[in-house]
Order: sequence, then structure tokens, then C-alpha cells
Amino acid sequence: MIHQEETTLDTRGRGTYELTGTVQRIVAGSGVRTGLCHLFLRHTSASLILCENADPAVRTDLETFMARTAPDGDPAYTHTAEGPDDMPAHIRSVLTQNDLNLPVRDGVCALGTWQGVFLWEHRTAPHRRSVVVTVTGD
Amino acid sequence: MIHQEETTLDTRGRGTYELTGTVQRIVAGSGVRTGLCHLFLRHTSASLILCENADPAVRTDLETFMARTAPDGDPAYTHTAEGPDDMPAHIRSVLTQNDLNLPVRDGVCALGTWQGVFLWEHRTAPHRRSVVVTVTGD
Amino acid sequence: MIHQEETTLDTRGRGTYELTGTVQRIVAGSGVRTGLCHLFLRHTSASLILCENADPAVRTDLETFMARTAPDGDPAYTHTAEGPDDMPAHIRSVLTQNDLNLPVRDGVCALGTWQGVFLWEHRTAPHRRSVVVTVTGD
Repeated sequence: MIHQEETTLDTRGRGTYELTGTVQRIVAGSGVRTGLCHLFLRHTSASLILCENADPAVRTDLETFMARTAPDGDPAYTHTAEGPDDMPAHIRSVLTQNDLNLPVRDGVCALGTWQGVFLWEHRTAPHRRSVVVTVTGD
Repeated sequence: MIHQEETTLDTRGRGTYELTGTVQRIVAGSGVRTGLCHLFLRHTSASLILCENADPAVRTDLETFMARTAPDGDPAYTHTAEGPDDMPAHIRSVLTQNDLNLPVRDGVCALGTWQGVFLWEHRTAPHRRSVVVTVTGD
Repeated sequence: MIHQEETTLDTRGRGTYELTGTVQRIVAGSGVRTGLCHLFLRHTSASLILCENADPAVRTDLETFMARTAPDGDPAYTHTAEGPDDMPAHIRSVLTQNDLNLPVRDGVCALGTWQGVFLWEHRTAPHRRSVVVTVTGD
């Protein structure tokens, strides 16, 4: 059994946006009880991450970490035509992930208690982001 | 054909723990000859990685790298309630991976000669970690 | 439906090598119209990444970033027997990915407009790299 659909999210710029509810609804609608749910972000300046979902300070600190690790406007960048936040966005994307696979068990994604699925927008401006969701199994 | 089971590992705190043998045993027991084996760690302060399996110094150096990149007790962190090693554990988890997909060929995971599967515990205290293993194929 | 094959690439040393065409040809040959294409690199000193495919400067800047983050010959490394570029190659591999899953839709990988699949060689010397490709679906 394969169910595939594309979902979009309009971001308000840099930051994290929880997708857990959307993903669980798609899995429920797919009819798959045991299998896998694959998420694929069709962009190279944003990420999909699994992150602690209880304290928003975790995600604030992740931004702080990335601002130090891959700062905007670093003079070492040569790809600068699309703005000071574009090359750091590509680096942050490569350091994290664009696709995630989640196990489906008893008709839901078997996430840990403190695990949420987040889209991490790395560009400072709002963007429309597309995620292809593919649910397979019995 | 889908085989799904959950396996747990009790860590002794920060460090790497090889899972290759456990994974190959689950694949052998699944009866799948050609397909994929998916591993999903249900935690956000540990990782699953593929790493060189011959010289343990590689994994020591990975710890050294992470200690420099995401140090314990960094004054920049605001998520500090769970201890000085908790936020760095979340960062290390996001910089690596929580799920891995391995090809199954001739009834075994077709790893490279020097590739091992490791659970990387990022917390300093011992933890019980759960991994959902899903094997699919023919 | 499962199609599995191994493809090899001879690198000329450190740098990025586009695999998008190879992957799309394998998917087309598999006959799968809706499903997933999994790529698995059987090495721990190279990576598979999704990256912006329009401006090569993006990949130059990624090299610059990694040269700063995990420099060759860092005196902190203890795994040095295989040369000054070996331990940084393992670190770069762990910070990125060795396996990718791409959705297959209408018989092609549904990549974003600016998304390419690249093998990133982290060793300075040429290497032969193997990728196991597994295409599943209807």
C-alpha cells in the first residue's frame, strides 16, 4: 500500500514550524497500520528535523548555535547574490536533513514522547515550502 | 513483507555503542532477502550514525570534535534546566541523525567493509534508548 | 516492486560529483512510477547530499565551511595513521549523510527545481565509491 501527497507550508521566515500534527493526519488518512512514513523537503535552504517538542528554548538555542556556526554575511562566502542569509541557509540545510523516515505502528508515527517533527526555515524572508509525504506498508 | 520490532539499549552514558550485530540478527530473522532496513531512534539527545568500525580512535576523535563544537555548559544556552549536557545533546542529535536506512541484499545489510552502525549517547548519565527497526522487502 | 543495483563512481579527490542523472536513469529503468528511491553510500569518508544545483559557488563555499569546521591535520586528532585528511573526512561524513531517500512520482525522483544529488568526496586522493540504489513502489 502506497499513499503519496504533497503538503505546503508558508513560513514567516527563519524559525521552526511543527509538522507533527499534519504528518499524523496524513498517516491516519493513508490507512497504513504498519510501515513507514517518508517526508521529503523539496528545498535546499530549509530542513526537516526531529527535535525536543516540550521546551521552545531548545529551538531558540539551536538558532543561536547555527548563528555562530554558519553566520549570515560571512566574508568567506562567494555565493552572495541571493543575500547574506542564503549561503548560511544552504550550509544549515546540509548539516541537518531534508528527508526523514518515521516508523508507522498501529496507524501512527511511533515518535518518542518528546520528539516532534519540525520544518526549519533558514531564510530570513517568508517562503512557501513543499513536502512530499509517502506512506508505505500494510 | 514487513517486519517491525523495537529493541532497547542501556547506555552507560556518553559514548558510542555498536548496533551492527543486533541489526544483522533482526534482518536475518525477518526473512527479507532484498529490501531495506530502517532504524529509528525515539530520542532527541542521542544519535544513530554510520562510522568507521576498525579503529576506536575515530570515535574518540568524534567526541573531541563535538566537545569543541557543542560544549557542555555553554553560557549561550537558555535551555539549562536538565543539566549542562542536555542542550549540547540536542545540538549533537540535530547535527547527526536519528534514523538510518540500510539496503538489504542477500539477506544482510549491505554495509561497506569499514562501516558499522552505532548508537551515539550524548547525555553523560546512563539512559535506556529505544530503536524501532522496520525491515521491508521480498 | 523492488529494483536494487549498485553503481560506482571514481572520484578525482575532494569535491562534489553530481549523481542526479544517474539516479533518474536508474529510477526510469526500474519501472517504478510511485514510491521511493533509496541511495546508500558504502563508505565513511564521503557523503551523499542534496544541494543547490545552479551555482557551483555554493559547493565551493561548502568546502570552505568544512575546511574551517573540520580542518585537515588538526592536532586534536588521534586517528592519524591514514593521513591528515582521513579523520576530517570521517567527521564531515557524520555531519552530513550516507543515505538519502527520494520520493518517486510519475516515474521520476520528485526533486525540487534547484535540488541536485551529489556525492561529496572528502578524501584528497581519488577513490572508487559504491552506492547501492534501491527503488521500491508500484
